Amino acid sequence: MTNNNKKPLILVVNDDGIESKGIKMLSNAMREIGEVYVVAPDSNRSGASHAITLDKEIYINNLNNGLNEYTCSGTPVDCVKLAINKILPRLPDLCVSGINHGANHSINILYSGTAHAAIEASIKGVPSIAFSHLSYSQSADLDQFKNVILNLSMNIIKNKLPIGVTLNVNIPDLPINKINGIRVSQQGDGKWVEDYKLKSINKLLSYYWITGHFEDKKHEEGCDLWDAKNNYISIVPISTNFTNNSSINILKYLQYDF
Amino acid sequence: MTNNNKKPLILVVNDDGIESKGIKMLSNAMREIGEVYVVAPDSNRSGASHAITLDKEIYINNLNNGLNEYTCSGTPVDCVKLAINKILPRLPDLCVSGINHGANHSINILYSGTAHAAIEASIKGVPSIAFSHLSYSQSADLDQFKNVILNLSMNIIKNKLPIGVTLNVNIPDLPINKINGIRVSQQGDGKWVEDYKLKSINKLLSYYWITGHFEDKKHEEGCDLWDAKNNYISIVPISTNFTNNSSINILKYLQYDF
Repeated sequence: MTNNNKKPLILVVNDDGIESKGIKMLSNAMREIGEVYVVAPDSNRSGASHAITLDKEIYINNLNNGLNEYTCSGTPVDCVKLAINKILPRLPDLCVSGINHGANHSINILYSGTAHAAIEASIKGVPSIAFSHLSYSQSADLDQFKNVILNLSMNIIKNKLPIGVTLNVNIPDLPINKINGIRVSQQGDGKWVEDYKLKSINKLLSYYWITGHFEDKKHEEGCDLWDAKNNYISIVPISTNFTNNSSINILKYLQYDF
Repeated sequence: MTNNNKKPLILVVNDDGIESKGIKMLSNAMREIGEVYVVAPDSNRSGASHAITLDKEIYINNLNNGLNEYTCSGTPVDCVKLAINKILPRLPDLCVSGINHGANHSINILYSGTAHAAIEASIKGVPSIAFSHLSYSQSADLDQFKNVILNLSMNIIKNKLPIGVTLNVNIPDLPINKINGIRVSQQGDGKWVEDYKLKSINKLLSYYWITGHFEDKKHEEGCDLWDAKNNYISIVPISTNFTNNSSINILKYLQYDF
């Protein structure tokens, strides 16, 4: 907050698109504590990761509904870049992304547009939180988590985060009275095992369609996957520095012919 | 290599698309040391990051040119997933991505399809290297770096890498005799400052087009940005675990109302 008399300015983004239930719940909640701008993709951009639009036009549409809501034809990261550069009156005090319909724990963060929209805001110096709910259903009851989300958001507006650090929050698919609490954890590990379906349009033309299942690998206590299995809301602080420090010294001993 | 009598199996990918000069140089070089499959986007997908195609058809086209070359209508990460699941005869011994026409050091790795294609292969357990050259020009002389690239590739085929660790290699835009050597470094830090151009189609419709410039922030010795400024080829080992460990203990002391 730049001024104690002013409400905090909050940017709300997502990857599921402006019509998703998750962003409506999140933006309505944020209006209770701040001045809210919503800048979201005009269609579902799940799996967009940190992609940006370099080689084509990006359209912004002000919905003119009195709620500061805009759609963007680009990716979730484009939404954040344009919000900060062209739409918001100043740098926001908080960026919240989601609520995503589906898990973004462990390796899923790599693919997630929800997480990467928040990461882009953190690069710009905006304290940022990505929220995901572990059900893929649009009819999941998200309203029950409103106070948890608002308390965490107000906490981060007050205490801020280091530049480039984003909070990745995953909420179990359970009634709130079955949730055991909140844990600050490490990213777990897993991978997707794809099962591509080959579908024929005609004798000459066919295409692939992705399906698959997730296999977890690292899920000991202290990881987001453990939290999910044990009915905790998980908060993982994530960084934009991907260096694997433990490999540096090993690699330095390899011979590099030049 | 699964068998000493067999040539290593090498997957070549990129984000600039099958027609780029960088992937032609890289695949030709790899054919000197292995059995090569090329699976690349059918058009330029720069800036695709780790995006995957979840909600539409993905087309694969075998160029049938005797060189095991395929195009894919999807993202660089789709290329790797389909190569490993549907095209290659077995898990490759190495995945090389690039050579990208333009830098992928520091924060640029977040946006890079070149880097993320290699990262996806590393998640699948394939030792992987992303190569980028610091000139955006398609006419840059990349052939002079062939031996450096082959030596590093053979080194990694022999010594492998931990699962989930990828090498991000950036090559200065200089004649090879002006390059001071190879350094194993950390990811530097910086950010893009966008300058969106607003262009009008008519009185009612306009769009944004991204332009901007890069500002580096962390470029002390030991970082890829220092290497670039000091005429070194830079190798940064990168991980798929984004946890910012130094924030975990601080965050644990915050009060989370529930």
